[in-house]
Amino acid sequence: MKIIDIIEKKKKGGVLNEEEIKFFINGVMTGSIEDYQTSALLMSIYFQGMNIDETTLLTKYMVESGEVLDLSDISNNIVDKHSTGGVGDKITLIFLPLMAAAGIYTAKLSGRGLGHTGGTIDKLESIPNFKTNLTIEEFKNKVKEHKTAIAAQTLSLTPADGKLYALRDVTATVDIIPLIASSVVSKKIASGANHIILDVKYGSGAFIKTAKEAEKLSQIMVEVGKRLGRNICAVISSMDKPLGRAIGNSVEIQEVIEFLKGNKDEDLKEITYTLCAEALEKTGVCTDKNKAFNYLDELIQSGKALEKFKDIVISQNGDASIIDDYTKLPQANIKYEVKSQKDGYVSDIDAMKIAKACKNLGAGREKKSDLIDYSAGIYLTQKTSEPVQKGETIAVIYTNKEETIKDAENLILSAYEITNKPEKRKSLIYKIIN
Amino acid sequence: MKIIDIIEKKKKGGVLNEEEIKFFINGVMTGSIEDYQTSALLMSIYFQGMNIDETTLLTKYMVESGEVLDLSDISNNIVDKHSTGGVGDKITLIFLPLMAAAGIYTAKLSGRGLGHTGGTIDKLESIPNFKTNLTIEEFKNKVKEHKTAIAAQTLSLTPADGKLYALRDVTATVDIIPLIASSVVSKKIASGANHIILDVKYGSGAFIKTAKEAEKLSQIMVEVGKRLGRNICAVISSMDKPLGRAIGNSVEIQEVIEFLKGNKDEDLKEITYTLCAEALEKTGVCTDKNKAFNYLDELIQSGKALEKFKDIVISQNGDASIIDDYTKLPQANIKYEVKSQKDGYVSDIDAMKIAKACKNLGAGREKKSDLIDYSAGIYLTQKTSEPVQKGETIAVIYTNKEETIKDAENLILSAYEITNKPEKRKSLIYKIIN
Repeated sequence: MKIIDIIEKKKKGGVLNEEEIKFFINGVMTGSIEDYQTSALLMSIYFQGMNIDETTLLTKYMVESGEVLDLSDISNNIVDKHSTGGVGDKITLIFLPLMAAAGIYTAKLSGRGLGHTGGTIDKLESIPNFKTNLTIEEFKNKVKEHKTAIAAQTLSLTPADGKLYALRDVTATVDIIPLIASSVVSKKIASGANHIILDVKYGSGAFIKTAKEAEKLSQIMVEVGKRLGRNICAVISSMDKPLGRAIGNSVEIQEVIEFLKGNKDEDLKEITYTLCAEALEKTGVCTDKNKAFNYLDELIQSGKALEKFKDIVISQNGDASIIDDYTKLPQANIKYEVKSQKDGYVSDIDAMKIAKACKNLGAGREKKSDLIDYSAGIYLTQKTSEPVQKGETIAVIYTNKEETIKDAENLILSAYEITNKPEKRKSLIYKIIN
Repeated sequence: MKIIDIIEKKKKGGVLNEEEIKFFINGVMTGSIEDYQTSALLMSIYFQGMNIDETTLLTKYMVESGEVLDLSDISNNIVDKHSTGGVGDKITLIFLPLMAAAGIYTAKLSGRGLGHTGGTIDKLESIPNFKTNLTIEEFKNKVKEHKTAIAAQTLSLTPADGKLYALRDVTATVDIIPLIASSVVSKKIASGANHIILDVKYGSGAFIKTAKEAEKLSQIMVEVGKRLGRNICAVISSMDKPLGRAIGNSVEIQEVIEFLKGNKDEDLKEITYTLCAEALEKTGVCTDKNKAFNYLDELIQSGKALEKFKDIVISQNGDASIIDDYTKLPQANIKYEVKSQKDGYVSDIDAMKIAKACKNLGAGREKKSDLIDYSAGIYLTQKTSEPVQKGETIAVIYTNKEETIKDAENLILSAYEITNKPEKRKSLIYKIIN
């Protein structure tokens, strides 16, 4: 078998068979296939696609390219959750303590982010001493003991995906639905959970721009997950506006804690609860959505969820005193208030512009080696459908780089759309694919 | 400027501008663009194409990536000829002496072949001591003195094309019309001639399979050549059957000499004369096609063309005694006659099967480093519309590898189509693009 024949076949619209996909992934792993051949094949896949059989096989061999976590000695009812990423997305940090409070096991491997803010792992590391670099043994032991743990994605899982992703990133082949699907699902399968809840976002602040694309991707991911033996679903939601009010790293931790203390942003609650309700249903804890929402409210009101958050922080060596004293989180030297330029009601906040501003303030990274400023970020004091007056603060900028403030302010002002009449809040959920 | 943005633009169907194409070719030359990025861009071009402006710019910057021969001190009326390649294509070796006999300057840089037989350079090197490895000075001096010379393509001309071609060859991105066009035309422009005659072949024995594709490619090449200031045309012809009777290296040299001695295969004559007539017209020697054909006949009948062939051989250090004694050319140990299995008339000979047989006999190479057996080849004693009787020899196999004979014989037998009625010979010329 020759890789050039496989490229030629896909280029002409052919369907790759199991032998060919296996040969490809093996070649990527051993290095017998050159990167320039891989990228030519990836670009062919961009144009010719892959059907569900091919995508499933690709996912399967990506899983088999590395280690697969075996969590069966802990439970056969373990949940994992994955988000395709958005602006102000701190859901995992609320999801995990809620699940643990409900008695459900979760085992979460997560990534650092290349983007406007850090990833979930970076956000957690803004808590002093929080340790995410766990060995697989430590990780499993913590899940066993605390019902949950979160660790930085290890390189020993789906290494083929790691290699392919690094190449896709520099060859304009990231936006290929079957490759996105197999990348996400292979990582989740290798992570060992039985139930997989996918949080798929579309819109200005997501890398998928339309609901239709998100639906297509979701259907493929769910089908592949099922074919590979997982209980999987996808919740599709809009990411046109930032999720919640905080965007950054330590500011998002603060919003998470506030949420768990009962101060719940409506949008953040809708999506987090919907994802939790899916998990409660899959694990057989609660099959009715309304009941599930009430149950989750109860877990927060009773303080049980917050207690579990504290439990996670302590279990992973973090300073839990931040929960009651936010000043122990990294603090920016500069706190700058952005004022509204007119009276009215907020009708829209463009997520992409807020994200861009946030990155410029120092909250994100461009290259893996870049350092994140945990304290940098933005807090949206006014959100959609809320009234504003000229001169009133609509957002607060946190940064240590004074030179970035002016641009960030302009971006924030242009992100806010202010109209004369208040708009009713709309549901963010588009569809759930089961 | 970033290469990933250029790939993305082309992937989405955008038109690359001059800055982008220049950046790309420069990056390929300096190595600042990685091969895996280049191959992703090439594959995008396969799917999205390039318009004539882009193709012209690509050609221009490929020319500028290396040395450009300046032949203006010899003449401003120099002809070059290029064939897209076929089975039994020995036209250059007849074209050059005919042109020289007509008093027209030609300066021919040619390649070695990866294929069923060697390229023109390999065929010439089957003449003992024939030297094709000329410096540019030697090459120019020989053109000045003998009106013509032929040398192996030098790496200092269009090195960007060399780099791109090497990559295309291993990434299934060879069959891309604008890249083929810019590769051919850039080499011809860098070679310094004023008039360019393209011999574009299509059919079973050519890499372009249909007349329509050949026409499309020809139109692009002619347009690009004109835009870059050359007097250029393309003669499109069918390559479903081998051209002439000899396929190999030294056997083709023999057929060339026979042609120049007046024993002209009709098909070989039609295409060679048509190409020559275009050159005679472009250089102002003869503007009427019929007159041109008569003139060419005369150059052969008078022995002037053969004399020029001898002149070339001697000028390039070759053993000219082969002209009168073919046994001085490399001889195969085995000469095997393939016999017809039935009575009738030859109605077709599949060029691709003959080519495959030829390669197996040792006449071609798969990798650059492979050695060619100059003596290996096939001679077709019976050609289309000629009668055959059962048991009569239809082809002769020349080889030094006895184990390859059986397969070659089967290929030859399956290549020959024999019917009850003779078919009239059809013209091979499809169209001339000026």
